[in-house]
Amino acid sequence: MVYPSGRHFLQIPGPTNIPDRVLRALAAPTIDHRGPGFSRLAREVLEGLGRVFGCSGPVVVFPSSGTGAWEAALVNTLSPGDRVLMFETGHFAALWCGVARRLGLEVEFVPGDWRHGVDPGEVRRRLAADWRGETKAVAVVHNETSTGCTSRIAEIREAMDEAGHPALFLVDVISSLGSIEYRHDEWGVDVAVGCSQKGLLLPPGLGINALSERALEASRGARLPRSYWDWRPMLESNEEGYFPYTPPTNLLFGLREALAMLFEEGLENVLARHRRHAEATRRAVRAWGLEVLCLEPAEYSASLTAVLMPEGHDADLLRRLVLEGFNMSLGAGLGKLAGRVFRIGHLGDLNDLMLVGALGGVEMGLSVAGVPHSKGGVMAAMEYLVETAPVAGRRAVAAGG
Amino acid sequence: MVYPSGRHFLQIPGPTNIPDRVLRALAAPTIDHRGPGFSRLAREVLEGLGRVFGCSGPVVVFPSSGTGAWEAALVNTLSPGDRVLMFETGHFAALWCGVARRLGLEVEFVPGDWRHGVDPGEVRRRLAADWRGETKAVAVVHNETSTGCTSRIAEIREAMDEAGHPALFLVDVISSLGSIEYRHDEWGVDVAVGCSQKGLLLPPGLGINALSERALEASRGARLPRSYWDWRPMLESNEEGYFPYTPPTNLLFGLREALAMLFEEGLENVLARHRRHAEATRRAVRAWGLEVLCLEPAEYSASLTAVLMPEGHDADLLRRLVLEGFNMSLGAGLGKLAGRVFRIGHLGDLNDLMLVGALGGVEMGLSVAGVPHSKGGVMAAMEYLVETAPVAGRRAVAAGG
Amino acid sequence: MVYPSGRHFLQIPGPTNIPDRVLRALAAPTIDHRGPGFSRLAREVLEGLGRVFGCSGPVVVFPSSGTGAWEAALVNTLSPGDRVLMFETGHFAALWCGVARRLGLEVEFVPGDWRHGVDPGEVRRRLAADWRGETKAVAVVHNETSTGCTSRIAEIREAMDEAGHPALFLVDVISSLGSIEYRHDEWGVDVAVGCSQKGLLLPPGLGINALSERALEASRGARLPRSYWDWRPMLESNEEGYFPYTPPTNLLFGLREALAMLFEEGLENVLARHRRHAEATRRAVRAWGLEVLCLEPAEYSASLTAVLMPEGHDADLLRRLVLEGFNMSLGAGLGKLAGRVFRIGHLGDLNDLMLVGALGGVEMGLSVAGVPHSKGGVMAAMEYLVETAPVAGRRAVAAGG
Amino acid sequence: MVYPSGRHFLQIPGPTNIPDRVLRALAAPTIDHRGPGFSRLAREVLEGLGRVFGCSGPVVVFPSSGTGAWEAALVNTLSPGDRVLMFETGHFAALWCGVARRLGLEVEFVPGDWRHGVDPGEVRRRLAADWRGETKAVAVVHNETSTGCTSRIAEIREAMDEAGHPALFLVDVISSLGSIEYRHDEWGVDVAVGCSQKGLLLPPGLGINALSERALEASRGARLPRSYWDWRPMLESNEEGYFPYTPPTNLLFGLREALAMLFEEGLENVLARHRRHAEATRRAVRAWGLEVLCLEPAEYSASLTAVLMPEGHDADLLRRLVLEGFNMSLGAGLGKLAGRVFRIGHLGDLNDLMLVGALGGVEMGLSVAGVPHSKGGVMAAMEYLVETAPVAGRRAVAAGG
Repeated sequence: MVYPSGRHFLQIPGPTNIPDRVLRALAAPTIDHRGPGFSRLAREVLEGLGRVFGCSGPVVVFPSSGTGAWEAALVNTLSPGDRVLMFETGHFAALWCGVARRLGLEVEFVPGDWRHGVDPGEVRRRLAADWRGETKAVAVVHNETSTGCTSRIAEIREAMDEAGHPALFLVDVISSLGSIEYRHDEWGVDVAVGCSQKGLLLPPGLGINALSERALEASRGARLPRSYWDWRPMLESNEEGYFPYTPPTNLLFGLREALAMLFEEGLENVLARHRRHAEATRRAVRAWGLEVLCLEPAEYSASLTAVLMPEGHDADLLRRLVLEGFNMSLGAGLGKLAGRVFRIGHLGDLNDLMLVGALGGVEMGLSVAGVPHSKGGVMAAMEYLVETAPVAGRRAVAAGG
Repeated sequence: MVYPSGRHFLQIPGPTNIPDRVLRALAAPTIDHRGPGFSRLAREVLEGLGRVFGCSGPVVVFPSSGTGAWEAALVNTLSPGDRVLMFETGHFAALWCGVARRLGLEVEFVPGDWRHGVDPGEVRRRLAADWRGETKAVAVVHNETSTGCTSRIAEIREAMDEAGHPALFLVDVISSLGSIEYRHDEWGVDVAVGCSQKGLLLPPGLGINALSERALEASRGARLPRSYWDWRPMLESNEEGYFPYTPPTNLLFGLREALAMLFEEGLENVLARHRRHAEATRRAVRAWGLEVLCLEPAEYSASLTAVLMPEGHDADLLRRLVLEGFNMSLGAGLGKLAGRVFRIGHLGDLNDLMLVGALGGVEMGLSVAGVPHSKGGVMAAMEYLVETAPVAGRRAVAAGG
Repeated sequence: MVYPSGRHFLQIPGPTNIPDRVLRALAAPTIDHRGPGFSRLAREVLEGLGRVFGCSGPVVVFPSSGTGAWEAALVNTLSPGDRVLMFETGHFAALWCGVARRLGLEVEFVPGDWRHGVDPGEVRRRLAADWRGETKAVAVVHNETSTGCTSRIAEIREAMDEAGHPALFLVDVISSLGSIEYRHDEWGVDVAVGCSQKGLLLPPGLGINALSERALEASRGARLPRSYWDWRPMLESNEEGYFPYTPPTNLLFGLREALAMLFEEGLENVLARHRRHAEATRRAVRAWGLEVLCLEPAEYSASLTAVLMPEGHDADLLRRLVLEGFNMSLGAGLGKLAGRVFRIGHLGDLNDLMLVGALGGVEMGLSVAGVPHSKGGVMAAMEYLVETAPVAGRRAVAAGG
Repeated sequence: MVYPSGRHFLQIPGPTNIPDRVLRALAAPTIDHRGPGFSRLAREVLEGLGRVFGCSGPVVVFPSSGTGAWEAALVNTLSPGDRVLMFETGHFAALWCGVARRLGLEVEFVPGDWRHGVDPGEVRRRLAADWRGETKAVAVVHNETSTGCTSRIAEIREAMDEAGHPALFLVDVISSLGSIEYRHDEWGVDVAVGCSQKGLLLPPGLGINALSERALEASRGARLPRSYWDWRPMLESNEEGYFPYTPPTNLLFGLREALAMLFEEGLENVLARHRRHAEATRRAVRAWGLEVLCLEPAEYSASLTAVLMPEGHDADLLRRLVLEGFNMSLGAGLGKLAGRVFRIGHLGDLNDLMLVGALGGVEMGLSVAGVPHSKGGVMAAMEYLVETAPVAGRRAVAAGG
């Protein structure tokens, strides 16, 4: 590496820059997972997660990646051959579809252009057409990490209700939880799928499900084989603050600290901060003369922005030069977007100056890589940040600046 | 807690006392799991794990607990309805059996008294009787964490060979790896199941499989549904140092440090240390007039010692008094041993004085709990430690002490 | 080292075993020492230190070792050629005397046998004889770290009062603060000299003075040259939570955590714990047939115990064998006690099992080194610990044990 | 604080942003400072410091702030009433002068405008005029942290030689060491004064002296009272890797890691990085239409840049708004510059994107505070960074960008 000095800018859309408070919490000595101290810890973090999900039902934590939590959502609610309605919003939707198929489910996979979220009208049409009720679940990725397009979960719920269809509603909130508004109970989601390494400010290692009452019911009749991912022993043990197998203790130490940080800042403030940083980022992108991948403003992601490269320029070369020259990791284009987009993660424990540095790294990288662009992206972003700076903005006016 | 001061003694048979070097390594900032730095890390730790297993084939690491690695061993090698030969050596063997059954396998579960390892003769007889070859796998727990009895893996392999039976050989090395001699290639094991929080000196969060060539072959025909646990995408991604889904980066930082520590001490020395501490512990137990649960000296565990309580005395009361009065966690009796035994973990990053402190805690706990016993357990242990102190022992003789 | 595994036993009388909570607090990113966050930190720790000293006047913290705080106590209160009454209680008293002489003070150094504290009667006699009031200060080491003998500060104060002598009273509480009862205001001490690496549970790096009103007055007229150690700019800056030069920020992070731990346990409980561990240690020493260096029971130290070696046996050889064989550091004999005593530190963040391990290390070390002794020291210590175990003791009786 | 999220930008000219590797090293358990492990550590770091200073003589480390090391330089080489030639380059030169006077030295303090370094011609004239040799030492601040002006040490040495004057040459390298070229031996400096919290990447707590042979000689005759700061016992103990009083062990752990980082990057690269970041910063300042305090380009500091506020605007209000609004600490104007300048620290463990973020924070702060300025400072800095990006620059050309 050319510049080994200084702090790495981890601007992929997860894992995110872990706060040092959380890193230090991770380093506490592991404790007995069957002792009273652990029980207190587990109950505290499970309750805190419920607040973040807006879920009054149980939240289940697996030692796993988010991929495991996808699998858990499916095997606990469905039976072999069950039909699931899924939408090709991008690479991760396609991966979840693959998981479902490998487990023996029949997926109706609605094609998409990777530049939009799920169309609620399409959901209504598809479910309305399913008068036999063969579709057992609708599974949607809230924030498609590969494209930076969100799906409007509340509207999709409404569409399902309008269709009067009893399918379960499964939502992947992996890269939205803690970054983009999500209301589990209010939006009538049955199973939410989350993980640790995004808005929850942790390293990877926790897969999470938030459950509705209907999801619990469904789990009683579901017949896909399940053992590790089975909610039942988990819920039973969690009751007393324990786990049916050894829990990832140190990540739970970190989770306690991360939740404390989210609540100290205030969840609403956290979400507003993400929205503001996302808009600043898009202004930079436009000032560079580049194109935001997401085509629908109502679906812009607050977690990340995927940027299209000009024809004939390789996003991966840009990313490599940025890494080597400026000590920053950007997200690659995934699947069919490989080489054509790069992704700027602006989620997690971020602030204005970290974002300015990150956007500066992109702007300088574009120069170094010889990608045609206008300068001034960072300047445009800063202008927006100043305009919207809480408190500070008002002073600026007062000072006539 | 009465004594909140000082270092907690975590003398359960895992998670173990994590070395502070490893704890600090866990606290390094998470890096991009698709970047070149991660690739180097992953290759280094996978290679190091191979050395610890004595396995020249691939080693696969899942973000999971050891329970997940049990499941992985089964779903990658077997098909619905396949018969597996398992042995009731204790609580964990019973749990693994439960996993297999939930996944749709047919388990022949040979009863046991929880005070012995697996009888190699029984393996030979059972397999010899299976002239139709219906048994697809033999699954054995190397060190039964609930009883402190080991099974003689090399002899069981021999028995399988003598029976000329083609079943796969699956071995749980969860609480033996890094503490008790285990030789994957040499002993002809097909899938070994390990995890992070025992002899590998880490917090929980990694489930591990070590594979033989035959296991890989079997995985090509196996038909149990599998997605998260599937070795194939894992092996393919690992080739370049990557993972098919987000890996538990910070635990891998810790693993690199833990492996460095094991290799610095020398694996042979690590195993010898465990044997010595186990013998010292048993001498203490006998001096107290209590009974070691394991009945077969050749099967004594070097990782932990389970101790029978005198009739009419509750092991869990003792454990609670030791925790509250002496800031030490001991292992509970599990399953049918609940309340009747307590378990002293003496594995992981231990030294003589930590062991003396731990045994002192038991001896004082017995007094406080009013359990009839002879004093002098610690003294007996110390005598053995002095006799066998490397270097030091020789000096004692020279000095005529 | 023979046993590199496991936790090191740091049983020197300081630095002590730092709690991992404090170690992690030390690793927080350094902050601006002129910013508002620092100001809050500084005020909080200075106030907390006042509680530990029992001092309602100011407490001053230098980036220095305790030796620096000795110097500060002298240069802020005395003038060239001033006479100071000091007592040869051991190595550290002699070192402080040397500091005073190098600074141009005239020390009346009362000889001692290194096996007692200061005789209050002698103080009274000396001061009574000084009818001209030439003695400007009496300087006493509260707990002589080289011998394990304490001096009775309250009685010495009484003696000074009885002599009606106006000398200032300077007391070194380096290895007593937070381990042995010390009451600054109540005992009428003018300057107390402390540091971070003993009962305050921190690494070395803070020198501390606690001041009385009279000390402040004296500082206005004192004429020894002073700059770094000058209280005046320090007190002025401290007023607002700042320092006249760059403060040791990260040690102050650690101090905040250490103070929190002391207050959580309760200062009275902390002191009682030290007394109990000291008595347990002395019982072990006597059971070994060895001799505690301190001859006066009323002066036994609760921080450490110095043990005399039998004639013809080298304490340093013992210490080396214990270090190499058992991964424990013991304190050396200092000055004229070199080779003749070893010192067991039992102060700081200790608990019963750590002490049992430490005493076990001494007992095994005696065997390995061929030092004649009776076994059973650890057993005697454990008996006392059980008898005096809070809560637990009562249960033992109830259980008839 | 408005934005509690994300990493704080500590852009004061020390303490600097501590690398997380160093922070974790600080958190290792304290060891026996009289044991063999400590001795190895001490020798290693003292030798490494010698390389950083370019000093083949001894380097002495005190548990102290840099202010203590100023005092040490004086008391070890001078006698009461000795005359020292000092130059008013700024606030810190004035403070050092104050230290000297309080210790009883007679300082000839040459006035300055706080916008230049020391004029070598003035040194020559003053010394040439001192035909009686009354000046015993010339004391210069290499990098005046309050102004961002450096003094040309090599030229001053030349001037001293030309004057043929035997005065000792004392140089404060507190904010230059590890950031700005300094060659102790080559430039004929007798005592250099350094500390930990600047280019050495550590928290505050170490005061450092690097010595020449002549300094050692001088110390044998020097008669200022000294005890804590005395080099003689320090050098004697250091010989074997020990200290005459308890050393700041954990900071030495950190120092070992910090030195490793400096040597990994390469000292030459470290210095080049600082020069490049300083130039980028000055380009931003000029683009804003503001004035760099330092008037002499040959004396621009690579560690920090002090910026003059436009008439009628308060630097401290700007700093407060930047802190509250953008989570960044800037340096205040000190002494007579209070409120009139702010200082941007760009030393220590920095990289391009951290600098871009920091400059962005200033640019946005100027807007928020209503300070008249042109936008485009960050853009100007980025242009320079791209032009001079090692490796990357060449690619940009190749790509025609």
